[in-house]
Amino acid sequence: MDRRAPLVCRHPGLRVNPLPNTVMPADLISAYNAVRQQSAALAAPLSCEDSCVQSMPDASPAKWHLGHTTWFFETFVLEPREPGFKPFHSAFRMLFNSYYNAVGDKHPRPQRGLLTRPGLSEVLGYRSNVDERMQALLLTKPDDDELRELVVLGLHHEQQHQELLLTDIKHLFSVSPLYPAYTDPASPCATAAPLTWHAFPDGVVQIGHEGDPFYFDNEKPRHRVYLQAYQLASRLVTNAEYAAFIEAEGYGTPAHWLAEGWDWRLAEGRDHPMYWQRNTAGWQEFTLGGLCALDPNAPVLHVSYYEADAYARWACARLPTEAEWESAAAPLALNTHSAGAGCFHPRSTQDAGLSQLFSDAWQWTQSSYAAYPGFRAPPGAVGEYNGKFMVNQYVLRGGSCVTPESHLRVSYRNFFPASACWQFSGIRLARDV
Amino acid sequence: MDRRAPLVCRHPGLRVNPLPNTVMPADLISAYNAVRQQSAALAAPLSCEDSCVQSMPDASPAKWHLGHTTWFFETFVLEPREPGFKPFHSAFRMLFNSYYNAVGDKHPRPQRGLLTRPGLSEVLGYRSNVDERMQALLLTKPDDDELRELVVLGLHHEQQHQELLLTDIKHLFSVSPLYPAYTDPASPCATAAPLTWHAFPDGVVQIGHEGDPFYFDNEKPRHRVYLQAYQLASRLVTNAEYAAFIEAEGYGTPAHWLAEGWDWRLAEGRDHPMYWQRNTAGWQEFTLGGLCALDPNAPVLHVSYYEADAYARWACARLPTEAEWESAAAPLALNTHSAGAGCFHPRSTQDAGLSQLFSDAWQWTQSSYAAYPGFRAPPGAVGEYNGKFMVNQYVLRGGSCVTPESHLRVSYRNFFPASACWQFSGIRLARDV
Amino acid sequence: MDRRAPLVCRHPGLRVNPLPNTVMPADLISAYNAVRQQSAALAAPLSCEDSCVQSMPDASPAKWHLGHTTWFFETFVLEPREPGFKPFHSAFRMLFNSYYNAVGDKHPRPQRGLLTRPGLSEVLGYRSNVDERMQALLLTKPDDDELRELVVLGLHHEQQHQELLLTDIKHLFSVSPLYPAYTDPASPCATAAPLTWHAFPDGVVQIGHEGDPFYFDNEKPRHRVYLQAYQLASRLVTNAEYAAFIEAEGYGTPAHWLAEGWDWRLAEGRDHPMYWQRNTAGWQEFTLGGLCALDPNAPVLHVSYYEADAYARWACARLPTEAEWESAAAPLALNTHSAGAGCFHPRSTQDAGLSQLFSDAWQWTQSSYAAYPGFRAPPGAVGEYNGKFMVNQYVLRGGSCVTPESHLRVSYRNFFPASACWQFSGIRLARDV
Amino acid sequence: MDRRAPLVCRHPGLRVNPLPNTVMPADLISAYNAVRQQSAALAAPLSCEDSCVQSMPDASPAKWHLGHTTWFFETFVLEPREPGFKPFHSAFRMLFNSYYNAVGDKHPRPQRGLLTRPGLSEVLGYRSNVDERMQALLLTKPDDDELRELVVLGLHHEQQHQELLLTDIKHLFSVSPLYPAYTDPASPCATAAPLTWHAFPDGVVQIGHEGDPFYFDNEKPRHRVYLQAYQLASRLVTNAEYAAFIEAEGYGTPAHWLAEGWDWRLAEGRDHPMYWQRNTAGWQEFTLGGLCALDPNAPVLHVSYYEADAYARWACARLPTEAEWESAAAPLALNTHSAGAGCFHPRSTQDAGLSQLFSDAWQWTQSSYAAYPGFRAPPGAVGEYNGKFMVNQYVLRGGSCVTPESHLRVSYRNFFPASACWQFSGIRLARDV
Repeated sequence: MDRRAPLVCRHPGLRVNPLPNTVMPADLISAYNAVRQQSAALAAPLSCEDSCVQSMPDASPAKWHLGHTTWFFETFVLEPREPGFKPFHSAFRMLFNSYYNAVGDKHPRPQRGLLTRPGLSEVLGYRSNVDERMQALLLTKPDDDELRELVVLGLHHEQQHQELLLTDIKHLFSVSPLYPAYTDPASPCATAAPLTWHAFPDGVVQIGHEGDPFYFDNEKPRHRVYLQAYQLASRLVTNAEYAAFIEAEGYGTPAHWLAEGWDWRLAEGRDHPMYWQRNTAGWQEFTLGGLCALDPNAPVLHVSYYEADAYARWACARLPTEAEWESAAAPLALNTHSAGAGCFHPRSTQDAGLSQLFSDAWQWTQSSYAAYPGFRAPPGAVGEYNGKFMVNQYVLRGGSCVTPESHLRVSYRNFFPASACWQFSGIRLARDV
Repeated sequence: MDRRAPLVCRHPGLRVNPLPNTVMPADLISAYNAVRQQSAALAAPLSCEDSCVQSMPDASPAKWHLGHTTWFFETFVLEPREPGFKPFHSAFRMLFNSYYNAVGDKHPRPQRGLLTRPGLSEVLGYRSNVDERMQALLLTKPDDDELRELVVLGLHHEQQHQELLLTDIKHLFSVSPLYPAYTDPASPCATAAPLTWHAFPDGVVQIGHEGDPFYFDNEKPRHRVYLQAYQLASRLVTNAEYAAFIEAEGYGTPAHWLAEGWDWRLAEGRDHPMYWQRNTAGWQEFTLGGLCALDPNAPVLHVSYYEADAYARWACARLPTEAEWESAAAPLALNTHSAGAGCFHPRSTQDAGLSQLFSDAWQWTQSSYAAYPGFRAPPGAVGEYNGKFMVNQYVLRGGSCVTPESHLRVSYRNFFPASACWQFSGIRLARDV
Repeated sequence: MDRRAPLVCRHPGLRVNPLPNTVMPADLISAYNAVRQQSAALAAPLSCEDSCVQSMPDASPAKWHLGHTTWFFETFVLEPREPGFKPFHSAFRMLFNSYYNAVGDKHPRPQRGLLTRPGLSEVLGYRSNVDERMQALLLTKPDDDELRELVVLGLHHEQQHQELLLTDIKHLFSVSPLYPAYTDPASPCATAAPLTWHAFPDGVVQIGHEGDPFYFDNEKPRHRVYLQAYQLASRLVTNAEYAAFIEAEGYGTPAHWLAEGWDWRLAEGRDHPMYWQRNTAGWQEFTLGGLCALDPNAPVLHVSYYEADAYARWACARLPTEAEWESAAAPLALNTHSAGAGCFHPRSTQDAGLSQLFSDAWQWTQSSYAAYPGFRAPPGAVGEYNGKFMVNQYVLRGGSCVTPESHLRVSYRNFFPASACWQFSGIRLARDV
Repeated sequence: MDRRAPLVCRHPGLRVNPLPNTVMPADLISAYNAVRQQSAALAAPLSCEDSCVQSMPDASPAKWHLGHTTWFFETFVLEPREPGFKPFHSAFRMLFNSYYNAVGDKHPRPQRGLLTRPGLSEVLGYRSNVDERMQALLLTKPDDDELRELVVLGLHHEQQHQELLLTDIKHLFSVSPLYPAYTDPASPCATAAPLTWHAFPDGVVQIGHEGDPFYFDNEKPRHRVYLQAYQLASRLVTNAEYAAFIEAEGYGTPAHWLAEGWDWRLAEGRDHPMYWQRNTAGWQEFTLGGLCALDPNAPVLHVSYYEADAYARWACARLPTEAEWESAAAPLALNTHSAGAGCFHPRSTQDAGLSQLFSDAWQWTQSSYAAYPGFRAPPGAVGEYNGKFMVNQYVLRGGSCVTPESHLRVSYRNFFPASACWQFSGIRLARDV
């Protein structure tokens, strides 16, 4: 009998696209239910213990994600609107507050994993309770546009945490000597299309959100930017290409690295991507499907900005700016998840055109995360959503194999510190003409 | 409906004395079963989440204690004796190794809380499996003295972890804003006997283990020590007495403190015992029964060596040496747990004689933990049990309200760093004549 | 007798403008001598001890600045050109290497202050020796353009270190309880012109260096940028204005701050600019002239990016981008140092126009330090001068009262991490139309 | 010309024994002058820079030692006795206070090296000023016993700092890539006497100071101790013997080490004594005479308690207790410094008897630094001299080649944390019978 078996949990194919891009009033309740059920479905393969532990200060326990997304609806939607509002639990307002100073006290982020109480089952009870109250509220106010807008914001917020739940579980499982698998492993990709370059002329372009009903405040205002002529790589950098950088002593050559990146590399003792390890048979990669042989044709994942920048310099290229990326991607359809999406791991592309933009790996840009011209954060707590993080972070564009499809947008601005690599971050190259 | 209720777990009165001091061969299996069941009983009030989380590097998850004590039997008893030995799980040998270099790799101590797998239920399965195999082995070798000795060592080892399981859960619950209770709160104590002094003459005495079948290696050899005349306080320092030290600016007066203690105090921002907090109604104390009003007559608990030493200096006294303590306590019967033991909190004493020696709070001595003259650590892994910790720790004597009664001994040497206060450590004063 | 007097050193008026903006071949030796003598003049008021100590890892000892600038000439100019080159001291190549991996080993930056040997007098001897050899070389190669270019780079490099020598000495003296003065204190400023707003239209502009013989690589290529319409404040924020922010609880209101800035503030315990302190008579400011009453009309100095950004948000404004700043400043003459320059402290302005651009305080921009489109670092060691620092730093524009005048340029890009405040950094506001 | 020469300072033979063990009233002024001049003589080879820098928090600048020892006389002797007392400089009372809370504020220890002012010459002026005032005071009060006692304490205090000045300079010079020499290098030792064991019987002995006029408070009260029979090694462990431990993988075998020592070793990356380094020709040792080939016959120096303990365990021995050491050494004459004393480096011994007790290297004992029975710290500031350090330190006995001879005493108790190795600490073995 293989006693290791119970350590691996399997879950049925997850649906990852419950939220329509445009939510009509009539559909709000069903959109609400779809997104909320998706979070529970993502947590279903986890044990109580898996859901409770915090593996590093940047990551949060799955249980906390489930509670915090519920807190968002209870605090911002129900509290000001529910007659005779009574919180589910008086302490949850503080326990599940992430970073909203306007709401009041917060449980310290690095201590989220110390909260064994409430347990997973109580948090699921909290979710049911708030879901019932939300449905009741939405039925009584079908025409309240401000309410609708806030609920849609809450759903997109929850979708962000669905992605984080997966990135955080991947990290948690990666630090276990048992390397548990969250789902089935991805099958290997046969080939990858050759990398080609797509050229774009200089001139004034416009970037930033337009038209579509939902957006985050940081995607606005739409505005003009002058771009010099540039070229963009047709696809993401593959594991095989990145392994060649390693073979060429890329991690040992300071000339490829930003000074701060070099120091980071030395301090972390990093000489390969965080989820890679080498054994006698060659490179292995930890995935949500467990520890697997590295797939040479799949995109490289979980690189920091420093690594992406060093690879680009070694490859006689550079990272794109976010304006270059958006301007090139805007005319294209949002491509759907590649075949491997069900196993939360990206596939190679066979497409010779501009591909792998939206649902394989987030793409580091060389753009520091900053306010668009004319940006002003909205008043109140929701004004803390994005604006206060606009320093010392870098914008990632596109989306990844763990991003809910209905959450993707060409103007979407993801952002992380240059050292972050537990997100599904990859590399798309650009170059000057 | 009070939604906070499910956060508080109650458990029936726990039996804390399953292991006879002297284990006859015929009784070994029943002693084994009694101790092993006691561990499970202590864990019964805990949720899966409670059992998994590590609240600080010094503490371990309850689940780890349950696994490690089982590992001890599987590794040291079964592995060399079971025909065709196959481990329950090939990874557990490393995962549940605490600090035995001779056994091989160890999972790093500060990462014990990251092990969500194996889950609590699998660890309980591990326990059942090893218990069955142990019983089978013991039945086949009723006359194997070496085996018997090793099993008794394993049972005392497990009793140590029973105490640690409680101290570690107390710490975990104390850092939750919800202050969960592990058991029922203790009822307040009416009065405490006045503190009196008991005098002892100078001369050569003997200390160290003798006679009794079981002891840890650090209690040997029994040897001669010359003592100057001294006096010992009749009972432990009470909360009321310690509160008077605080009122008298004891925490703000460097002259009372060791220089290193003063630095510790500043670095930690400490101005009262770690589980005390002040609200408008006065002092409260976090206990295994939850947050309670401070009981003035109960012994002060959870003080560091620095605090104990500073209090003693303020009180014109000093801490005893371990030889003074043992020499004074040796003639006394091991007093049983006070009435409050069921709730894992000490009671006041009404006894005018030398009391509260064994089962209320461990008593810091001024003795640095060191080898007795002629001590030599045994060869092999068990030699790592005690000897390698003999530096920069201080000896505590007696026992506490969470120590299993059958684990107490007058020659018992507990030891912790001077800054430790999550153990049930209190203060007994001594003074020169 | 006032025994404190000897602790204060005074020095005669320093000339701060020895290097012409454009260096003709015929003038190279005199320009070389002028810049080199200026460094020695700046160090003249310092004792051996003052010149040796490193007060924090970011700062360097004055003696190190004197040695490193000399090392630049010995390593990059003399070593490849001097026939039979022999280094002054074989160890200096490593000791005085700052961050050039291409040159080889470096003495670790945080340990620069541990180098008591070579002493100040030996470093001055090193300077004389290299100066003689440089003059000899320059005389033999009057028409070597590459040599001339490298020497001019070395002189601008030395001017950068002249400024750093002053910022680092200010920090060193500020941590002494004696608050030594490097020079005479500045006299108070009577008034400051009212702050007005200067408007600029939208459209494509060009920024980046053009024409002028000398520039650093990061100022190139000159390129097009699209600017939205904006307004720029006529002058720098004054101490009085910044004090009003403090009075209005600006440091205690998270809504004004970037999240990372708020954390920085808490970690540092910062609630006023780093060189301010409050006594019973009000605010005092540590200056290179010693501890003085805060001058309300002088510009606020030594603020971090976080503080500048928080102040701007509180004042319903924002920081300018570097393109906005350069585009507005380009048509203006480089204004000369204000009257207070001799005492290394900025004066108030009486000018109603756009003023205080170049020689009072560096002005934080909201622009992250990044490569201009088409930038490529030159090959070899000089390629490490700028490019490898292009991450997680913010651009400051203009110049300060401690910047050598001949070192100023409208396209000049200074850069520091957002937390840096030991530079002479101030605040110029911008706003959207 | 060898330009490295000026980096090496040489000084004439230093006299290291100016203070008679017993100071008669008539001799007090000459004893005072002798000790004070000795401090200045030890500082003479140092440049201003050498005297100012602090190479680690545990070490102090030479200038600070010169100032602090002067402060002792000004604060404790002159301030309460000099009519119309005026301090030399109002800030020095705080700047040169080491750790006396009763005196008031202290400049933080890790910032002693930031005090470039007062400079060395002003500190020497401070010394002259206080010396004049002290001589004047002593002349007016020839029969004041309390004054005499305090002055003698101050002289012994100064002798302690003479030793620290040398240990701290050795550390400072050791971190310079230039490895400056403070004095001439020691010549190699031809041979070392074989190690033999000296046996001592069990029984009650007395230890602690008696008779001799001067002692530190921690050497009292003299008291009885029971010793088991033991043996003491005839001489110190040599470099050759310690190198054999290294060759035998002593640093890589956890079984030899205390658990805390093993962690220390890993954290520090230590695999040889701190001043050793290996080059192609073999081991070299940094000494006050510069970097030299390791002398196999000289005693091993600069080992931590952890290293001393590990070596002893590997050698099937142990460290002595301080009572064993003192009891064995008491009958012996204080042996004088070995021939190498002038170069501040110990020599081998040719003596087959119990040797190298007092003036080669301090000898780690296994005794934690604690109060002798009946010890009570004196009231006031001098009570802070010793008592408050009695935790987590280990006693070293004997004396070293940098200890002033007149400072040696058989009852002398030196003490340092187990990790300290910048003192001249060596190893004497003991074993059970």
